[in-house]
Amino acid sequence: MKKVIKNGTVVTATDTYEADILVENGVISQIGHNLSTEGVETVDANGCYVFPGGIDPHTHLEMPFGGTVTKDDFETGTMAAAFGGTTTIIDFCLSNKGEPLKDAIQTWHQKSKGKAVIDYGFHLSIGEVTDAVLNELPSVIEKEGITSFKVFMAYKNVLQADDETLYKTLVAAKDLGALVMVHAENGDVIDFLVKKALSEGKTEPIYHALTRPQEIEGEATERAATFAGLANSQLYVVHVSCADAVQAITKAREKGYEVWGETCPQYLVLDQSYLEKPDFEGAKYVWSPPLREKWNQDVLWNALRTGQLHTFGSDQCSFDFKGQKELGLGDFSKIPNGGPMIEERLTVLFSEGVKKGRITLNQFVNLTSTRVAKLFGLYPKKGTIAVGVDADLVIFDPNIERTISAETHHMAVDYSAFEGMTFIGEPVSVLSRGEFVIRNKEFVGKQGAGQFIKRAKYGETYKM
Amino acid sequence: MKKVIKNGTVVTATDTYEADILVENGVISQIGHNLSTEGVETVDANGCYVFPGGIDPHTHLEMPFGGTVTKDDFETGTMAAAFGGTTTIIDFCLSNKGEPLKDAIQTWHQKSKGKAVIDYGFHLSIGEVTDAVLNELPSVIEKEGITSFKVFMAYKNVLQADDETLYKTLVAAKDLGALVMVHAENGDVIDFLVKKALSEGKTEPIYHALTRPQEIEGEATERAATFAGLANSQLYVVHVSCADAVQAITKAREKGYEVWGETCPQYLVLDQSYLEKPDFEGAKYVWSPPLREKWNQDVLWNALRTGQLHTFGSDQCSFDFKGQKELGLGDFSKIPNGGPMIEERLTVLFSEGVKKGRITLNQFVNLTSTRVAKLFGLYPKKGTIAVGVDADLVIFDPNIERTISAETHHMAVDYSAFEGMTFIGEPVSVLSRGEFVIRNKEFVGKQGAGQFIKRAKYGETYKM
Amino acid sequence: MKKVIKNGTVVTATDTYEADILVENGVISQIGHNLSTEGVETVDANGCYVFPGGIDPHTHLEMPFGGTVTKDDFETGTMAAAFGGTTTIIDFCLSNKGEPLKDAIQTWHQKSKGKAVIDYGFHLSIGEVTDAVLNELPSVIEKEGITSFKVFMAYKNVLQADDETLYKTLVAAKDLGALVMVHAENGDVIDFLVKKALSEGKTEPIYHALTRPQEIEGEATERAATFAGLANSQLYVVHVSCADAVQAITKAREKGYEVWGETCPQYLVLDQSYLEKPDFEGAKYVWSPPLREKWNQDVLWNALRTGQLHTFGSDQCSFDFKGQKELGLGDFSKIPNGGPMIEERLTVLFSEGVKKGRITLNQFVNLTSTRVAKLFGLYPKKGTIAVGVDADLVIFDPNIERTISAETHHMAVDYSAFEGMTFIGEPVSVLSRGEFVIRNKEFVGKQGAGQFIKRAKYGETYKM
Amino acid sequence: MKKVIKNGTVVTATDTYEADILVENGVISQIGHNLSTEGVETVDANGCYVFPGGIDPHTHLEMPFGGTVTKDDFETGTMAAAFGGTTTIIDFCLSNKGEPLKDAIQTWHQKSKGKAVIDYGFHLSIGEVTDAVLNELPSVIEKEGITSFKVFMAYKNVLQADDETLYKTLVAAKDLGALVMVHAENGDVIDFLVKKALSEGKTEPIYHALTRPQEIEGEATERAATFAGLANSQLYVVHVSCADAVQAITKAREKGYEVWGETCPQYLVLDQSYLEKPDFEGAKYVWSPPLREKWNQDVLWNALRTGQLHTFGSDQCSFDFKGQKELGLGDFSKIPNGGPMIEERLTVLFSEGVKKGRITLNQFVNLTSTRVAKLFGLYPKKGTIAVGVDADLVIFDPNIERTISAETHHMAVDYSAFEGMTFIGEPVSVLSRGEFVIRNKEFVGKQGAGQFIKRAKYGETYKM
Repeated sequence: MKKVIKNGTVVTATDTYEADILVENGVISQIGHNLSTEGVETVDANGCYVFPGGIDPHTHLEMPFGGTVTKDDFETGTMAAAFGGTTTIIDFCLSNKGEPLKDAIQTWHQKSKGKAVIDYGFHLSIGEVTDAVLNELPSVIEKEGITSFKVFMAYKNVLQADDETLYKTLVAAKDLGALVMVHAENGDVIDFLVKKALSEGKTEPIYHALTRPQEIEGEATERAATFAGLANSQLYVVHVSCADAVQAITKAREKGYEVWGETCPQYLVLDQSYLEKPDFEGAKYVWSPPLREKWNQDVLWNALRTGQLHTFGSDQCSFDFKGQKELGLGDFSKIPNGGPMIEERLTVLFSEGVKKGRITLNQFVNLTSTRVAKLFGLYPKKGTIAVGVDADLVIFDPNIERTISAETHHMAVDYSAFEGMTFIGEPVSVLSRGEFVIRNKEFVGKQGAGQFIKRAKYGETYKM
Repeated sequence: MKKVIKNGTVVTATDTYEADILVENGVISQIGHNLSTEGVETVDANGCYVFPGGIDPHTHLEMPFGGTVTKDDFETGTMAAAFGGTTTIIDFCLSNKGEPLKDAIQTWHQKSKGKAVIDYGFHLSIGEVTDAVLNELPSVIEKEGITSFKVFMAYKNVLQADDETLYKTLVAAKDLGALVMVHAENGDVIDFLVKKALSEGKTEPIYHALTRPQEIEGEATERAATFAGLANSQLYVVHVSCADAVQAITKAREKGYEVWGETCPQYLVLDQSYLEKPDFEGAKYVWSPPLREKWNQDVLWNALRTGQLHTFGSDQCSFDFKGQKELGLGDFSKIPNGGPMIEERLTVLFSEGVKKGRITLNQFVNLTSTRVAKLFGLYPKKGTIAVGVDADLVIFDPNIERTISAETHHMAVDYSAFEGMTFIGEPVSVLSRGEFVIRNKEFVGKQGAGQFIKRAKYGETYKM
Repeated sequence: MKKVIKNGTVVTATDTYEADILVENGVISQIGHNLSTEGVETVDANGCYVFPGGIDPHTHLEMPFGGTVTKDDFETGTMAAAFGGTTTIIDFCLSNKGEPLKDAIQTWHQKSKGKAVIDYGFHLSIGEVTDAVLNELPSVIEKEGITSFKVFMAYKNVLQADDETLYKTLVAAKDLGALVMVHAENGDVIDFLVKKALSEGKTEPIYHALTRPQEIEGEATERAATFAGLANSQLYVVHVSCADAVQAITKAREKGYEVWGETCPQYLVLDQSYLEKPDFEGAKYVWSPPLREKWNQDVLWNALRTGQLHTFGSDQCSFDFKGQKELGLGDFSKIPNGGPMIEERLTVLFSEGVKKGRITLNQFVNLTSTRVAKLFGLYPKKGTIAVGVDADLVIFDPNIERTISAETHHMAVDYSAFEGMTFIGEPVSVLSRGEFVIRNKEFVGKQGAGQFIKRAKYGETYKM
Repeated sequence: MKKVIKNGTVVTATDTYEADILVENGVISQIGHNLSTEGVETVDANGCYVFPGGIDPHTHLEMPFGGTVTKDDFETGTMAAAFGGTTTIIDFCLSNKGEPLKDAIQTWHQKSKGKAVIDYGFHLSIGEVTDAVLNELPSVIEKEGITSFKVFMAYKNVLQADDETLYKTLVAAKDLGALVMVHAENGDVIDFLVKKALSEGKTEPIYHALTRPQEIEGEATERAATFAGLANSQLYVVHVSCADAVQAITKAREKGYEVWGETCPQYLVLDQSYLEKPDFEGAKYVWSPPLREKWNQDVLWNALRTGQLHTFGSDQCSFDFKGQKELGLGDFSKIPNGGPMIEERLTVLFSEGVKKGRITLNQFVNLTSTRVAKLFGLYPKKGTIAVGVDADLVIFDPNIERTISAETHHMAVDYSAFEGMTFIGEPVSVLSRGEFVIRNKEFVGKQGAGQFIKRAKYGETYKM
């Protein structure tokens, strides 16, 4: 069945124009003025923007962490994503040291298959680079279609890799055509500061932030970027939270290094003071890297404007306040790190960024979709509105004002990081490969409709 | 008459895809797969890219300079531009101190009207900011559609404005919605160094470069950028030639200042050593700022890649070697500054940039067309390929290898700065508002077909 | 008559040790333990530091400014200096455009001769660099012993020199062996901002600060430093007030440029908020550059600690509040710029710097005396405590706590910028060439005892 | 017995003047003109400089390394040091993991006692920071007088400490009053690059340099400096070899961090090309960090001039070419790292630095003696020429030109890194606590005359 999206304002990473969009077989086949509606389903987008579906490069669904598991799985997580205007996610598949990579990937397929309501891909986290791992990487890329690897510089004794692992991963990625992602914080220093704080009886959530100072995010970012430059490889720094890390990325790029940076909604809108909320409520705002002093927000916004940062991920990693965040009562280091964010990603950036004049509408699309697609090998199948591209489309009303609440959001968690905050702009309808997932704000998709996407190698399609 | 461009690969500042383009009434009305060719003229673009027509933000046609006049006028200049894939130029209208601005504009209309074969707009150069000038500026912007002003920090006692003029212009531009352009070199220091060199008998062309060291381009750029930041205004630095200026722009943007930078083909491909060519041939390579030591090229290319520089202009300013450049025989300071560049702008950037992997194809389009259109208020009438946009289109063969020569180029000058060099890629056909100007490498346009374009205010359409 | 200073702790720019000092014929002839007191006058310095006499590189005594004249002349100014532990000053001799330099110098000799109670030298301010000026400079240096020239980048239409003048002065100074000093603020921008503020009815003293933003001190400093580097000459930036200027100096030095920076007591202890004092009292705190936001103080202190700044001057330029500062009632631009500072220079730096652990005792000596002597050609006649050096000595009690007040200070002005503030440390006795000027806090010197010092060329003695 | 040094030119870190020096009981008791020679031994220093004895902060005598032991022990090493004008060394005492620190210190006392001909102290290397180590540190500082600890960031699986160890050491040092020294290179990356090179058959000495790129010295320096800043502690970066590390130190200091940097003769005079010498001779030039590309030398010299670097050590670590360096034949990674340098330290800096105008004579003294004494708690017992200070004196002829050769040097090794090079300036006589060690270029000292010096805590005497 064909569909034509009528009367909307089409927005890409570069253009904004009024046109109709014809969808055939799940793909955009024509864009034009006054497209014929004969024999096609007509979708009215009058007064709305039509965006390419959001692509979230950073989610953790049904992920074990610190003795618990993230609350949203591939069903609730992708439903919430769809409500928020996201039509593809790339989730982190965690491998255990010693375990064959394909087993880890298999585990992740089991979590997702038959559940996801939108398309998805996987990144693979790498804890060590043994010969076995090196031997398996080519098939991970070529056969599994997983072309990005993540290395943790933090979480000592758990996820943290040493510098040799990071460097080896960069070298391997260069040869094989993958993109290396880092969580850039110095885990050794954090570990020391955390132990010290606890030994001094400092157990409240705020100490989570105070034991992860931004200097050591800057340090780790600089270190990873230096490795990338030296290895002539490519690096993507996830969840950049502060000025120090922005500067490290900028400096590396000025040297000609191929380094990219992602930030997330929480760092643009929330700040360190939230961790001081009474009654342990600060625990809701525990991310790593932590929320920073508010002045960093200006630096992040400016970095999005100037192109010092490149993508916008959610770092969705949700835990209930009751029962999960509460694991850290009396010991902030036991608070599960992360929060619910997959649903509000587009709205926050639109409302705080576009509406407030900090970034343009086209930058919004680039950050939430197009550049993600390009960097992670989803382009040109996804990531833009153009002839031949998957009809992953968001019909977005730019004028709706709404207040966020856990009572109304679609994630499975019992709180919202934005409880009571008001944002402008909301997805009205969302299509995945031409089929409605959300229609007039109602979920009309189906479990398992989402497909796993094998992604192209880094740089094979387009970098920018 | 409708036209359909078939089988080409459409390229925008963000996307690359195969599609047909339907043109009606000079405007793109539809983009799609297998568009009907019934009753429409079919243009085959098989094997070719279809680019939005190039927009050259920086030309000097029929401009008086140092007692002579640039060789190319609006006829030969725009014809050569069209051969090179450029469908719009923005030329610099020079005003004289004391003269009403509208008289200067009138003079420029007289130069261009009935001559230009492609569309054009004007920037206005500002030499001083008297009350009369301030009073006239609103109508220049609102009525004349001239929304960018240029201030020279060099050419002492001729074009050079003092810091007060620059600052006042920035303040006025902020209020009125215009973009201030600067030629950023310290004219006082240059003047001193030039006199000193001449007094020491140093008269050859190479001393043109040696008396304009890059430190003082960096200094002037930093100064202008500081003013822009302080005035909370917007600045566009023309013809950035060197690392020092790139750094000044980058630093300003990191501070949140709204500063943009342009570079030109000559700085990417030629270098200071060309000024040492024997038999006064070095004079052919006299630009201001001058060609730099070769290592700067890496910095410029990286700046284009990372987004530290934003547009690509020709700084077309052609003088014959015989009779014009020769005015500087025995005194380099009398060599007219500038060279023929309007024709090769796209080819150089495509061949040296895209083909060599330094920038992407989409960046190429952004630099040569889209971002120029956005910064200078031509967007969305021009600058991209999308429904509703002027059908200014270039059908570009990315595989043709050709050697540049004054014997075959279409500019009116007697030499080429690229004589004997080989580049890959050539415009085959070029359309302006749906009409062929170049068809299969032949000029088929007509004198005077080009229209003057009144441009929107800065920031009114889109900045990025 | 010989003197021996007994039991003091001798402090130089590098050493701190207990020893006696023997003075013969006005010169230090011996330093040792238990020097014989037979036949010599004994001065007890028990419990005190013995410093080399302070050298103030920056004073304006009896200087015409804005229709009035600074209140302290060579008599009251040098007496106050002596009370404060300063035994040599270098005052700015202003030349008028067109006037032979020697006439200006003669005028300054007339102001000082027979009045000064301590030794003194002159800097010469240069407003333009004509051939006449160039011809006269060698004799200024060789015969007059004036080896430093000042150029103003601010005070438009009054003292401000253009860039050509600054550059020429640097080139001449390089050849002749002089040090070029700059007042680094962009006068053009200030002039615009001042006019704009006044036209908006903003007339209070605070607008003096707000119309001289630190960005344009940074800009001017960077510009001057770039010129110095390019001319391979030497530059000394007077009264550095802010982070932007410190960074410009630091960056220049990292490039290998020979650039030095001075700061003053007011910038370390006072801040912009003082200009908001009611009842026009803010006028007492009008300096150019202006007092800055308080956070700059940390940057300045750190710069003194690390060696990014090099000397400490008073910029003594005193005007009575009554009758002089009041000239600016209703128009901040008419407030005479400057304040009384010659007397408290050492005490402020000792109390706020040494006592608070921000700099070492030896750095204190270097900043207030030794490096000044070296940079300005007074060394090794003055500037340290060593055998053969003039016995300009300060016996300084590091434990006295005292409160500053106009009622007790020795300057001729009717207010103190530090009124009511308490500092620790005070000169008890001060010797100039072996003779007491201050003895047990009483003035015992005599008018006219101070000698004019012809200074050596830059770099002839020692730079560091 | 008293001595008087007559007619010399005394040089301190700040002053240069002609005076006689009286020495009593090994200490300077008087400095003056025409000191009496009655009943005292007279030493003529006519035409010579008198410097405070050099203090070498960085030596490795009789140190096990890679299966061999450095050739020079406390006897030959200190004799050679004395010939070169050094009167105190601080040697690195290596501790083994698990071993009580006092045992390591005991071992080092055994190596040195009865052998050293000049005074000496120890730094202590720290490999891990267990509770046992933490418990022992106070007595190391208080009782043993060892107040500086070294942490290696390189030499993976051998000396390399992890980030936690470095950070813990900085925190402990802050509390206890010690100075932390780092060897700043990223050992993980080096280890990878070395293995990779060897696996590719790249075995020659030049690969030592190519597998330790300067980016990872910069990275490690920045990391360590960030830790120091965060821990509010103090850091001393040994053997800075390149621009990247200088910048890291400079940036840290601008932020207010307390970070110091040392460089060594080899980095100022030799460069990477020496490792390409044929017949395995390149092995003679194997240091870590390695010799760098020559352009770095300008950066290092400028850093010494401006105060971005602070001390000058030898990193004496000598191995015979025959039998020792040759261990690396066929595998550069087995070449013992280091070279003979203790003897030429002063001469190289004087000849290349002072004589060539790159630094001043006073900076020479500061770098080779005074600042070392201050940073490492030897001041004011040592490190300057002033009343009350140990009479460690060097009578230095600044005009002697001599050619360096292994045949004439006094180190025990079979080659010189400066073979055949000519330098200007040579110590003629050297006194340690008033006794001649070298007299007219002959060794007249005695084995075991050198005393172990317990050093004061960091910052207790003077930092600068």
